[in-house]
Amino acid sequence: MSERYISPLVIRRLPKYHRCLKELSRSGVSRVSSSVLANNLGFTASQVRQDFSCFGGFGQQGYGYNVESLLAEIASIIGVDRKHTAAIIGVGHLGHALVNNFSFKTSGFELAAAFDVNPELIGTKIGDVPILDISEMEKKFDENPFDVAVLTMPRELARDMARKVAELGVRGIWNFTNVDLSATELGVEIENVHFADSLKILCYEISKEK
Amino acid sequence: MSERYISPLVIRRLPKYHRCLKELSRSGVSRVSSSVLANNLGFTASQVRQDFSCFGGFGQQGYGYNVESLLAEIASIIGVDRKHTAAIIGVGHLGHALVNNFSFKTSGFELAAAFDVNPELIGTKIGDVPILDISEMEKKFDENPFDVAVLTMPRELARDMARKVAELGVRGIWNFTNVDLSATELGVEIENVHFADSLKILCYEISKEK
Repeated sequence: MSERYISPLVIRRLPKYHRCLKELSRSGVSRVSSSVLANNLGFTASQVRQDFSCFGGFGQQGYGYNVESLLAEIASIIGVDRKHTAAIIGVGHLGHALVNNFSFKTSGFELAAAFDVNPELIGTKIGDVPILDISEMEKKFDENPFDVAVLTMPRELARDMARKVAELGVRGIWNFTNVDLSATELGVEIENVHFADSLKILCYEISKEK
Repeated sequence: MSERYISPLVIRRLPKYHRCLKELSRSGVSRVSSSVLANNLGFTASQVRQDFSCFGGFGQQGYGYNVESLLAEIASIIGVDRKHTAAIIGVGHLGHALVNNFSFKTSGFELAAAFDVNPELIGTKIGDVPILDISEMEKKFDENPFDVAVLTMPRELARDMARKVAELGVRGIWNFTNVDLSATELGVEIENVHFADSLKILCYEISKEK
Protein backbone atom coordinates (compact mmCIF):
# COMPACT_ATOMS: atom_id res chain seq x y z
CA MET A 1 0.00 0.00 0.00
CA SER A 2 1.28 3.50 -0.75
CA GLU A 3 2.37 5.63 2.17
CA ARG A 4 0.64 8.82 1.08
CA TYR A 5 -1.56 10.74 3.49
CA ILE A 6 -5.20 9.71 3.73
CA SER A 7 -7.53 11.88 5.74
CA PRO A 8 -8.82 10.40 9.03
CA LEU A 9 -12.32 11.25 7.80
CA VAL A 10 -11.89 8.91 4.85
CA ILE A 11 -10.44 6.23 7.11
CA ARG A 12 -13.38 6.51 9.50
CA ARG A 13 -15.72 5.80 6.58
CA LEU A 14 -13.89 2.59 5.56
CA PRO A 15 -15.64 0.38 8.16
CA LYS A 16 -19.00 1.68 6.94
CA TYR A 17 -18.18 0.72 3.33
CA HIS A 18 -16.97 -2.63 4.60
CA ARG A 19 -20.18 -3.28 6.57
CA CYS A 20 -22.40 -2.17 3.70
CA LEU A 21 -20.55 -4.32 1.15
CA LYS A 22 -20.75 -7.35 3.43
CA GLU A 23 -24.51 -6.91 3.60
CA LEU A 24 -24.75 -6.53 -0.18
CA SER A 25 -22.60 -9.63 -0.63
CA ARG A 26 -24.76 -11.56 1.85
CA SER A 27 -27.85 -10.50 -0.10
CA GLY A 28 -26.31 -11.85 -3.30
CA VAL A 29 -25.77 -8.49 -5.00
CA SER A 30 -22.87 -8.74 -7.44
CA ARG A 31 -22.47 -5.19 -8.76
CA VAL A 32 -23.14 -1.86 -7.07
CA SER A 33 -22.93 1.75 -8.25
CA SER A 34 -21.44 4.58 -6.22
CA SER A 35 -24.89 6.15 -5.95
CA VAL A 36 -26.46 2.99 -4.47
CA LEU A 37 -23.58 2.70 -2.00
CA ALA A 38 -23.95 6.39 -1.17
CA ASN A 39 -27.66 6.02 -0.68
CA ASN A 40 -27.27 3.06 1.69
CA LEU A 41 -24.75 4.98 3.76
CA GLY A 42 -26.20 8.46 3.74
CA PHE A 43 -23.24 9.87 1.78
CA THR A 44 -23.26 11.49 -1.69
CA ALA A 45 -22.12 9.54 -4.74
CA SER A 46 -19.32 12.02 -5.40
CA GLN A 47 -18.14 11.54 -1.80
CA VAL A 48 -17.96 7.79 -2.39
CA ARG A 49 -16.00 8.21 -5.65
CA GLN A 50 -13.69 10.72 -3.98
CA ASP A 51 -13.06 8.37 -1.06
CA PHE A 52 -12.33 5.45 -3.38
CA SER A 53 -9.96 7.58 -5.48
CA CYS A 54 -7.71 7.80 -2.38
CA PHE A 55 -7.07 4.09 -2.87
CA GLY A 56 -6.77 4.08 -6.64
CA GLY A 57 -10.44 4.03 -7.57
CA PHE A 58 -11.35 0.32 -7.47
CA GLY A 59 -12.20 -0.24 -11.10
CA GLN A 60 -14.68 0.89 -13.64
CA GLN A 61 -17.39 3.27 -12.53
CA GLY A 62 -19.62 3.06 -15.60
CA TYR A 63 -20.58 -0.53 -14.84
CA GLY A 64 -20.58 -0.08 -11.09
CA TYR A 65 -18.20 -1.90 -8.77
CA ASN A 66 -17.90 -5.65 -8.43
CA VAL A 67 -19.14 -6.23 -4.86
CA GLU A 68 -16.86 -9.19 -4.01
CA SER A 69 -13.66 -7.63 -5.26
CA LEU A 70 -14.46 -4.23 -3.73
CA LEU A 71 -15.21 -5.98 -0.42
CA ALA A 72 -11.90 -7.85 -0.63
CA GLU A 73 -9.96 -4.68 -1.45
CA ILE A 74 -11.49 -2.71 1.41
CA ALA A 75 -11.03 -5.64 3.81
CA SER A 76 -7.37 -5.72 2.82
CA ILE A 77 -6.93 -1.95 3.28
CA ILE A 78 -8.50 -2.12 6.75
CA GLY A 79 -6.45 -5.21 7.50
CA VAL A 80 -9.34 -7.43 8.63
CA ASP A 81 -7.94 -10.18 6.40
CA ARG A 82 -4.89 -10.46 8.67
CA LYS A 83 -5.09 -12.20 12.02
CA HIS A 84 -4.34 -9.86 14.85
CA THR A 85 -4.72 -11.00 18.45
CA ALA A 86 -6.54 -9.20 21.23
CA ALA A 87 -6.78 -9.58 25.00
CA ILE A 88 -9.56 -8.11 27.13
CA ILE A 89 -8.51 -6.55 30.42
CA GLY A 90 -11.46 -6.63 32.82
CA VAL A 91 -14.28 -9.16 32.67
CA GLY A 92 -17.09 -7.19 34.28
CA HIS A 93 -20.44 -6.75 32.55
CA LEU A 94 -19.00 -4.92 29.56
CA GLY A 95 -16.13 -7.39 29.21
CA HIS A 96 -18.63 -10.26 29.38
CA ALA A 97 -20.85 -8.60 26.79
CA LEU A 98 -17.92 -8.23 24.39
CA VAL A 99 -16.61 -11.77 24.90
CA ASN A 100 -20.08 -13.27 24.55
CA ASN A 101 -21.65 -11.23 21.80
CA PHE A 102 -19.08 -9.33 19.82
CA SER A 103 -17.48 -10.90 16.78
CA PHE A 104 -13.81 -9.96 17.00
CA LYS A 105 -13.19 -12.15 13.96
CA THR A 106 -15.30 -9.92 11.71
CA SER A 107 -13.02 -7.01 12.62
CA GLY A 108 -9.82 -8.94 11.95
CA PHE A 109 -9.01 -10.16 15.45
CA GLU A 110 -8.73 -13.35 17.40
CA LEU A 111 -9.74 -12.76 21.02
CA ALA A 112 -7.05 -14.88 22.61
CA ALA A 113 -7.44 -14.19 26.32
CA ALA A 114 -9.20 -12.21 29.00
CA PHE A 115 -7.63 -10.99 32.24
CA ASP A 116 -9.34 -10.25 35.55
CA VAL A 117 -8.67 -10.06 39.28
CA ASN A 118 -11.76 -12.03 40.35
CA PRO A 119 -10.73 -15.47 41.72
CA GLU A 120 -14.15 -16.86 40.79
CA LEU A 121 -13.52 -16.07 37.12
CA ILE A 122 -9.81 -16.90 36.87
CA GLY A 123 -9.25 -20.33 35.37
CA THR A 124 -12.71 -20.46 33.74
CA LYS A 125 -13.53 -19.90 30.09
CA ILE A 126 -16.21 -17.95 28.24
CA GLY A 127 -16.70 -19.89 25.04
CA ASP A 128 -13.13 -20.54 23.87
CA VAL A 129 -11.64 -17.61 25.71
CA PRO A 130 -9.66 -18.39 28.88
CA ILE A 131 -9.91 -15.97 31.78
CA LEU A 132 -6.43 -15.48 33.22
CA ASP A 133 -5.09 -13.95 36.39
CA ILE A 134 -4.15 -10.33 35.80
CA SER A 135 -1.06 -10.80 37.98
CA GLU A 136 0.24 -13.16 35.27
CA MET A 137 -0.23 -10.64 32.51
CA GLU A 138 3.46 -9.97 31.94
CA LYS A 139 4.25 -13.66 31.71
CA LYS A 140 1.40 -14.27 29.27
CA PHE A 141 2.40 -11.32 27.10
CA ASP A 142 5.95 -12.68 27.07
CA GLU A 143 4.78 -16.09 25.90
CA ASN A 144 2.27 -14.72 23.44
CA PRO A 145 2.36 -11.02 22.59
CA PHE A 146 -1.10 -9.61 21.92
CA ASP A 147 -1.52 -6.95 19.24
CA VAL A 148 -4.36 -5.11 20.96
CA ALA A 149 -5.53 -4.69 24.56
CA VAL A 150 -9.24 -4.05 25.11
CA LEU A 151 -9.62 -1.96 28.24
CA THR A 152 -12.90 -2.67 30.01
CA MET A 153 -11.81 -2.38 33.61
CA PRO A 154 -12.79 0.40 36.07
CA ARG A 155 -11.77 3.83 34.85
CA GLU A 156 -9.61 4.63 37.90
CA LEU A 157 -7.18 1.96 36.70
CA ALA A 158 -7.23 2.93 33.03
CA ARG A 159 -4.17 5.16 32.78
CA ASP A 160 -1.86 2.80 34.66
CA MET A 161 -3.10 -0.19 32.71
CA ALA A 162 -2.71 1.63 29.38
CA ARG A 163 0.91 2.43 30.25
CA LYS A 164 1.49 -1.17 31.29
CA VAL A 165 0.10 -2.78 28.12
CA ALA A 166 1.99 -0.24 26.01
CA GLU A 167 5.22 -1.28 27.78
CA LEU A 168 4.30 -4.93 27.25
CA GLY A 169 4.28 -4.23 23.54
CA VAL A 170 0.68 -3.96 22.34
CA ARG A 171 0.34 -1.95 19.15
CA GLY A 172 -3.14 -0.68 19.84
CA ILE A 173 -5.60 -0.06 22.68
CA TRP A 174 -9.36 -0.33 22.28
CA ASN A 175 -10.45 1.81 25.17
CA PHE A 176 -13.91 1.58 26.73
CA THR A 177 -12.99 3.19 30.06
CA ASN A 178 -14.14 6.69 29.12
CA VAL A 179 -10.73 8.06 30.11
CA ASP A 180 -9.19 9.85 27.14
CA LEU A 181 -5.89 8.16 26.40
CA SER A 182 -3.26 9.84 24.26
CA ALA A 183 -1.64 7.89 21.46
CA THR A 184 1.39 10.19 21.34
CA GLU A 185 1.96 9.86 25.10
CA LEU A 186 1.70 6.06 25.04
CA GLY A 187 3.30 5.48 21.66
CA VAL A 188 0.57 3.09 20.52
CA GLU A 189 -2.59 3.48 18.45
CA ILE A 190 -5.67 4.28 20.52
CA GLU A 191 -9.32 3.97 19.68
CA ASN A 192 -11.43 5.55 22.40
CA VAL A 193 -15.05 4.39 22.52
CA HIS A 194 -17.19 7.14 24.02
CA PHE A 195 -20.76 5.97 24.48
CA ALA A 196 -21.68 9.46 25.66
CA ASP A 197 -20.74 11.08 22.34
CA SER A 198 -23.23 8.85 20.60
CA LEU A 199 -26.04 9.49 23.11
CA LYS A 200 -25.42 13.24 22.90
CA ILE A 201 -25.94 13.12 19.12
CA LEU A 202 -29.29 11.47 19.76
CA CYS A 203 -30.02 14.08 22.42
CA TYR A 204 -29.34 16.81 19.84
CA GLU A 205 -31.57 15.17 17.25
CA ILE A 206 -34.57 14.82 19.55
CA SER A 207 -34.02 18.21 21.20
CA LYS A 208 -33.95 20.24 18.00
CA GLU A 209 -37.42 18.99 17.05
CA LYS A 210 -39.04 20.38 20.18
CA MET B 1 -32.48 27.97 17.76
CA SER B 2 -32.45 28.76 14.05
CA GLU B 3 -33.73 26.09 11.70
CA ARG B 4 -30.99 26.44 9.12
CA TYR B 5 -29.12 23.39 7.92
CA ILE B 6 -26.10 22.31 9.91
CA SER B 7 -23.90 19.56 8.50
CA PRO B 8 -24.01 16.19 10.30
CA LEU B 9 -20.20 16.38 10.45
CA VAL B 10 -20.42 19.54 12.55
CA ILE B 11 -23.08 17.97 14.74
CA ARG B 12 -20.95 14.87 15.33
CA ARG B 13 -18.18 17.12 16.63
CA LEU B 14 -20.43 18.86 19.19
CA PRO B 15 -20.13 16.10 21.82
CA LYS B 16 -16.36 16.28 21.51
CA TYR B 17 -16.36 20.04 22.16
CA HIS B 18 -18.72 19.43 25.07
CA ARG B 19 -16.49 16.76 26.59
CA CYS B 20 -13.34 18.83 26.12
CA LEU B 21 -14.91 21.96 27.64
CA LYS B 22 -16.15 19.98 30.64
CA GLU B 23 -12.62 18.78 31.25
CA LEU B 24 -11.22 22.32 30.92
CA SER B 25 -13.91 23.59 33.30
CA ARG B 26 -13.12 20.82 35.79
CA SER B 27 -9.44 21.77 35.62
CA GLY B 28 -10.33 25.37 36.46
CA VAL B 29 -9.46 26.84 33.06
CA SER B 30 -11.53 29.98 32.47
CA ARG B 31 -10.60 31.04 28.91
CA VAL B 32 -9.56 28.97 25.92
CA SER B 33 -8.49 29.84 22.40
CA SER B 34 -9.68 28.04 19.28
CA SER B 35 -6.15 26.75 18.74
CA VAL B 36 -5.94 25.19 22.21
CA LEU B 37 -9.37 23.60 21.72
CA ALA B 38 -8.27 22.38 18.29
CA ASN B 39 -5.08 20.95 19.69
CA ASN B 40 -6.89 19.04 22.45
CA LEU B 41 -9.28 17.55 19.92
CA GLY B 42 -6.99 16.89 16.99
CA PHE B 43 -8.81 19.43 14.78
CA THR B 44 -7.42 22.60 13.19
CA ALA B 45 -8.14 26.01 14.71
CA SER B 46 -9.89 27.14 11.55
CA GLN B 47 -12.12 24.06 11.73
CA VAL B 48 -13.10 25.00 15.27
CA ARG B 49 -13.90 28.61 14.29
CA GLN B 50 -15.81 27.40 11.24
CA ASP B 51 -17.84 24.94 13.35
CA PHE B 52 -18.66 27.62 15.91
CA SER B 53 -19.70 30.07 13.20
CA CYS B 54 -22.58 27.67 12.38
CA PHE B 55 -24.03 28.64 15.75
CA GLY B 56 -23.27 32.34 15.66
CA GLY B 57 -19.61 32.27 16.68
CA PHE B 58 -19.79 32.26 20.50
CA GLY B 59 -18.14 35.57 21.24
CA GLN B 60 -14.83 37.28 20.83
CA GLN B 61 -12.00 35.28 19.34
CA GLY B 62 -9.17 37.67 20.16
CA TYR B 63 -9.45 37.01 23.86
CA GLY B 64 -10.39 33.35 23.46
CA TYR B 65 -13.68 31.89 24.57
CA ASN B 66 -15.05 31.97 28.10
CA VAL B 67 -15.05 28.27 29.03
CA GLU B 68 -18.15 28.31 31.24
CA SER B 69 -20.37 30.21 28.83
CA LEU B 70 -19.16 28.25 25.81
CA LEU B 71 -19.84 25.04 27.73
CA ALA B 72 -23.34 26.26 28.60
CA GLU B 73 -24.07 27.28 25.00
CA ILE B 74 -22.92 23.96 23.57
CA ALA B 75 -24.80 22.03 26.28
CA SER B 76 -27.92 23.96 25.32
CA ILE B 77 -27.45 23.31 21.58
CA ILE B 78 -27.00 19.58 22.22
CA GLY B 79 -29.93 19.67 24.63
CA VAL B 80 -28.17 18.01 27.57
CA ASP B 81 -29.56 20.76 29.82
CA ARG B 82 -33.08 19.40 29.25
CA LYS B 83 -34.26 16.29 31.02
CA HIS B 84 -35.15 13.56 28.58
CA THR B 85 -36.11 10.11 29.82
CA ALA B 86 -34.74 6.79 28.64
CA ALA B 87 -35.66 3.15 29.11
CA ILE B 88 -33.31 0.23 28.49
CA ILE B 89 -34.76 -2.79 26.74
CA GLY B 90 -32.73 -5.86 27.68
CA VAL B 91 -30.75 -6.24 30.89
CA GLY B 92 -28.09 -8.72 29.80
CA HIS B 93 -24.41 -7.98 30.29
CA LEU B 94 -24.41 -4.89 28.09
CA GLY B 95 -27.62 -3.57 29.66
CA HIS B 96 -26.13 -4.15 33.10
CA ALA B 97 -22.92 -2.39 32.11
CA LEU B 98 -24.85 0.67 30.91
CA VAL B 99 -27.16 0.82 33.95
CA ASN B 100 -24.24 0.38 36.35
CA ASN B 101 -21.48 2.42 34.82
CA PHE B 102 -22.80 4.84 32.24
CA SER B 103 -23.86 8.33 33.29
CA PHE B 104 -27.05 9.00 31.35
CA LYS B 105 -27.36 12.28 33.25
CA THR B 106 -24.19 13.69 31.67
CA SER B 107 -25.78 13.17 28.26
CA GLY B 108 -29.07 14.83 29.21
CA PHE B 109 -31.10 11.76 30.19
CA GLU B 110 -32.74 10.25 33.19
CA LEU B 111 -32.66 6.47 32.95
CA ALA B 112 -36.17 5.83 34.25
CA ALA B 113 -36.65 2.10 33.74
CA ALA B 114 -35.24 -1.12 32.36
CA PHE B 115 -37.26 -3.92 30.79
CA ASP B 116 -36.42 -7.61 30.60
CA VAL B 117 -38.01 -11.04 30.27
CA ASN B 118 -35.96 -12.70 33.03
CA PRO B 119 -38.22 -13.44 36.07
CA GLU B 120 -35.18 -13.32 38.35
CA LEU B 121 -34.52 -9.71 37.36
CA ILE B 122 -38.09 -8.41 37.12
CA GLY B 123 -39.11 -6.53 40.24
CA THR B 124 -35.51 -5.87 41.31
CA LYS B 125 -33.56 -2.63 40.96
CA ILE B 126 -30.08 -1.73 39.82
CA GLY B 127 -29.25 1.39 41.79
CA ASP B 128 -32.39 3.51 41.41
CA VAL B 129 -33.50 1.86 38.19
CA PRO B 130 -36.42 -0.58 38.43
CA ILE B 131 -36.34 -3.65 36.19
CA LEU B 132 -39.83 -4.13 34.77
CA ASP B 133 -41.55 -6.97 32.96
CA ILE B 134 -41.29 -6.48 29.21
CA SER B 135 -44.89 -7.69 28.83
CA GLU B 136 -45.96 -4.54 30.70
CA MET B 137 -44.08 -2.23 28.37
CA GLU B 138 -47.15 -0.76 26.69
CA LYS B 139 -48.79 0.01 30.04
CA LYS B 140 -45.63 1.63 31.36
CA PHE B 141 -45.17 3.71 28.22
CA ASP B 142 -48.79 4.81 28.54
CA GLU B 143 -48.29 5.94 32.14
CA ASN B 144 -44.94 7.50 31.47
CA PRO B 145 -43.80 8.01 27.89
CA PHE B 146 -40.06 7.60 27.52
CA ASP B 147 -38.20 9.82 25.05
CA VAL B 148 -35.59 7.26 24.10
CA ALA B 149 -35.39 3.46 24.06
CA VAL B 150 -31.96 1.90 24.48
CA LEU B 151 -31.92 -1.41 22.61
CA THR B 152 -29.56 -3.90 24.24
CA MET B 153 -31.50 -7.10 23.69
CA PRO B 154 -30.53 -9.96 21.33
CA ARG B 155 -30.22 -8.85 17.73
CA GLU B 156 -32.86 -11.27 16.41
CA LEU B 157 -35.48 -9.24 18.26
CA ALA B 158 -34.15 -5.81 17.30
CA ARG B 159 -36.31 -4.95 14.30
CA ASP B 160 -39.59 -5.92 15.95
CA MET B 161 -38.70 -4.12 19.14
CA ALA B 162 -37.65 -0.99 17.24
CA ARG B 163 -41.02 -0.92 15.47
CA LYS B 164 -42.81 -1.45 18.79
CA VAL B 165 -41.08 1.36 20.68
CA ALA B 166 -41.55 3.66 17.69
CA GLU B 167 -45.28 2.92 17.80
CA LEU B 168 -45.28 3.50 21.55
CA GLY B 169 -44.04 7.00 20.86
CA VAL B 170 -40.32 7.17 21.58
CA ARG B 171 -38.58 9.96 19.72
CA GLY B 172 -35.23 8.27 19.49
CA ILE B 173 -33.59 4.86 19.61
CA TRP B 174 -30.08 4.26 20.91
CA ASN B 175 -29.30 1.01 19.17
CA PHE B 176 -26.60 -1.39 20.40
CA THR B 177 -27.94 -4.49 18.63
CA ASN B 178 -25.67 -4.21 15.59
CA VAL B 179 -28.74 -4.38 13.33
CA ASP B 180 -28.85 -1.27 11.15
CA LEU B 181 -32.15 0.48 11.83
CA SER B 182 -33.50 3.08 9.47
CA ALA B 183 -34.77 6.38 10.85
CA THR B 184 -36.92 7.08 7.80
CA GLU B 185 -38.56 3.65 7.99
CA LEU B 186 -39.33 3.97 11.69
CA GLY B 187 -40.04 7.68 11.79
CA VAL B 188 -37.82 8.26 14.83
CA GLU B 189 -34.24 9.38 15.33
CA ILE B 190 -31.75 6.51 15.43
CA GLU B 191 -28.25 6.37 16.74
CA ASN B 192 -26.63 3.08 15.86
CA VAL B 193 -23.63 2.10 17.98
CA HIS B 194 -21.34 -0.14 15.96
CA PHE B 195 -18.49 -1.42 18.09
CA ALA B 196 -17.05 -3.12 15.01
CA ASP B 197 -16.54 0.19 13.15
CA SER B 198 -14.36 1.39 15.96
CA LEU B 199 -12.31 -1.81 16.17
CA LYS B 200 -11.83 -1.80 12.39
CA ILE B 201 -10.32 1.71 12.62
CA LEU B 202 -7.85 0.35 15.13
CA CYS B 203 -7.24 -2.63 12.85
CA TYR B 204 -6.43 -0.21 10.00
CA GLU B 205 -4.07 1.83 12.18
CA ILE B 206 -2.04 -1.14 13.39
CA SER B 207 -2.12 -2.88 9.99
CA LYS B 208 -0.76 0.03 7.98
CA GLU B 209 2.39 0.14 10.14
CA LYS B 210 3.36 -3.40 9.27
